[in-house]
Amino acid sequence: MSDTTRRAFLKGAAVAGAAVTGSRAVAQQADPAITELQPWMRYLGEGVDARPYGHPSEHEAHVVRRNVEWLTADPVSSVNFTPLHELDGIITPNGLCFERHHAGIAEVDPAQHRLMINGLVDTPLVFTMADLMRFPRVNRVHFLECAANSGMEWAGAQLNGCQYTHGMIHNVMYTGVPLRLLLEEAGVKTGGKWLLAEGADASAMTRSIPMEKALDDCLVAFKMNGEALRPEQGYPVRLVVPGWEGNMWVKWLRRLEVGDQPWEHREETSKYTDLLDNGRARKWTWEMDAKSVITNPSPQAPITHGRGPLVITGVAWSGRGTVPRVDVTTDGGVTWHEARMSGPSMDKSMHRFYYEMDWDGAPLLLQSRAMDSTGYVQPTKDMLRQVRGENSIYHNNGIQTWAVNANGEAENVEIS
Amino acid sequence: MSDTTRRAFLKGAAVAGAAVTGSRAVAQQADPAITELQPWMRYLGEGVDARPYGHPSEHEAHVVRRNVEWLTADPVSSVNFTPLHELDGIITPNGLCFERHHAGIAEVDPAQHRLMINGLVDTPLVFTMADLMRFPRVNRVHFLECAANSGMEWAGAQLNGCQYTHGMIHNVMYTGVPLRLLLEEAGVKTGGKWLLAEGADASAMTRSIPMEKALDDCLVAFKMNGEALRPEQGYPVRLVVPGWEGNMWVKWLRRLEVGDQPWEHREETSKYTDLLDNGRARKWTWEMDAKSVITNPSPQAPITHGRGPLVITGVAWSGRGTVPRVDVTTDGGVTWHEARMSGPSMDKSMHRFYYEMDWDGAPLLLQSRAMDSTGYVQPTKDMLRQVRGENSIYHNNGIQTWAVNANGEAENVEIS
Repeated sequence: MSDTTRRAFLKGAAVAGAAVTGSRAVAQQADPAITELQPWMRYLGEGVDARPYGHPSEHEAHVVRRNVEWLTADPVSSVNFTPLHELDGIITPNGLCFERHHAGIAEVDPAQHRLMINGLVDTPLVFTMADLMRFPRVNRVHFLECAANSGMEWAGAQLNGCQYTHGMIHNVMYTGVPLRLLLEEAGVKTGGKWLLAEGADASAMTRSIPMEKALDDCLVAFKMNGEALRPEQGYPVRLVVPGWEGNMWVKWLRRLEVGDQPWEHREETSKYTDLLDNGRARKWTWEMDAKSVITNPSPQAPITHGRGPLVITGVAWSGRGTVPRVDVTTDGGVTWHEARMSGPSMDKSMHRFYYEMDWDGAPLLLQSRAMDSTGYVQPTKDMLRQVRGENSIYHNNGIQTWAVNANGEAENVEIS
Repeated sequence: MSDTTRRAFLKGAAVAGAAVTGSRAVAQQADPAITELQPWMRYLGEGVDARPYGHPSEHEAHVVRRNVEWLTADPVSSVNFTPLHELDGIITPNGLCFERHHAGIAEVDPAQHRLMINGLVDTPLVFTMADLMRFPRVNRVHFLECAANSGMEWAGAQLNGCQYTHGMIHNVMYTGVPLRLLLEEAGVKTGGKWLLAEGADASAMTRSIPMEKALDDCLVAFKMNGEALRPEQGYPVRLVVPGWEGNMWVKWLRRLEVGDQPWEHREETSKYTDLLDNGRARKWTWEMDAKSVITNPSPQAPITHGRGPLVITGVAWSGRGTVPRVDVTTDGGVTWHEARMSGPSMDKSMHRFYYEMDWDGAPLLLQSRAMDSTGYVQPTKDMLRQVRGENSIYHNNGIQTWAVNANGEAENVEIS
């Protein structure tokens, strides 16, 4: 390392809290481009009246949600994926939050929409959106992960890219009314132990939620990342069930029924249960276990700069709390290095980690391993299969492996 | 209060950490709309392949940035405003972040863009975007406020709406490289005490920044709220100068020159200085003082629901740290109530506050007063005028007053 590189290395270690490798090797000491007058330096651009609601640069047109056509019979009951490999930090922009619908995007008129609370309550109530805005609100950042995220991986390395293997997740700041306040307003009767949440879409998506969770940290949310919910995310109002599988976060929320037992509807019996080897199914597997994935480098984001300073980064989350630590290995688990966490660490929210290294150009076997605030450690896929078999689609939080070859390309592989 | 309302009040106080008033008065016990089958319940919606990059509901078409034509001679050297009254929480969505340009929106090709560091350095360097991505990154949420935010208010209550009086601010999560690491890579010579940041737009916007700040917490940022910077916010790379006036956050950043003294360019002498009564000007007024504003109710967001439960909310920020406390008055300052803060409290980031009350339908004089982590208390506009006169355009952080009349409409007023 040159003196300046070493100086950056040492000072960086003191400040950034992690090894810092200078890019002196890649930065040029002279470059004609810097002296050229580019078009944007010579001509006036569009004014402040051109974009009332802004959009990304045309050079970012490749940063989009993508679906996999062969995965489902029809796009109206399907899923698309968040481009995790194109993002950084912990906030998912609203336009890139993955979608999962059972009957397409319901285009709800907020003026006509109503939320009803009925069943075992003292007073059945119906709320307009304006009514909901008169209750106290809170703001919380939470990840939403589909139970089927990484589901294809039960059968071994399948999809080539973290957008497809891990992109059924997003992380946004919600503004909403604590569900508990609305239930208290209606008055839950003594026998009321369960809640049925029903959506206003054509599938009338429904899920049973235990009263303990409903009274704990659930929200009836109307804003995401500061603005109104997007139509595909349940506009004008959705349920937020922190840390629990995404299908329970009922979108276009129209009804909350209080009952004395679970409803055992289709989406919680034939679907969203985990069939084990012995033919029995795990039911009510609501909580999302601690999980992580390296987003860069990855199959959709190869190393293009050759040897030298390399930034490895990814995301981690847990349905049980925070993720204080993530370890990274570059040799398939022979040696692990503690990654540097950067950005706010919040309950049941996504966390961002980095591991900086000098790449010598040799092939890498990249993995990340999350440890959450309960002490739970993310398991390998093989460990999960030993316990749950391979019949399941859901709750695969196993460690992901990317094989990076000498030319910087990465692919989805499994190692034992 | 009814029993259920009182129950909500007490439990809410324990949980939400603030007075909670039920909306029993407004929620209906029966409503035909809830039994009607709306169109979105009967027909399939668009599929997951319809919106690769999403957009807001058509019912939110009014939620946009707005400019004021008479404010500037031409929209290419002008400003538009964030619709604060339509937002909640603390994150500003990228499409609604206010814009200020001196020569319009530069449409930069990231493949052609370069960042040069020259002047009093050991080794002048030129970085491509790919080079920058090889340095360690950090993630931080910071507000950016234009020094001219609320500038019209020096002359008394002018613009009728918080979008116009306080909308030259946004708050996003940035991902970027600590500026210090890049300066260390080039090696700042002993005499290097100042930094000139230059933009690649047609105005070649430049500002002098003291080396202490540059080495402290400045970032060379390439992402906002997870995705690439928007063109109007400096795509592909901008300077982040936490807590300091927005014009120093040079967009489309192309050059950083190290020098032994400030450059005294136009934007830091004839502009962005504060002319006092005695004819002398305050210079280098970089830090943004603690400030707050009630966003709802406000002139653009009147009370439409009549008497009863009312949620008052707004935002607060300080260039010197966090805002642990905001007080709210509904009688023009005769009595103050401590507001409830909700959402993450981060250094030099926006904070959200709420004050819930039962409105009796009588006129209100609404004000909010921020207190930051240094103990600084937001002053009245009159207190500022006594010290600085009325010649200035910049750094008006005075307390804002909204007069709400009996029919719920609000207007911008001044009281002494």
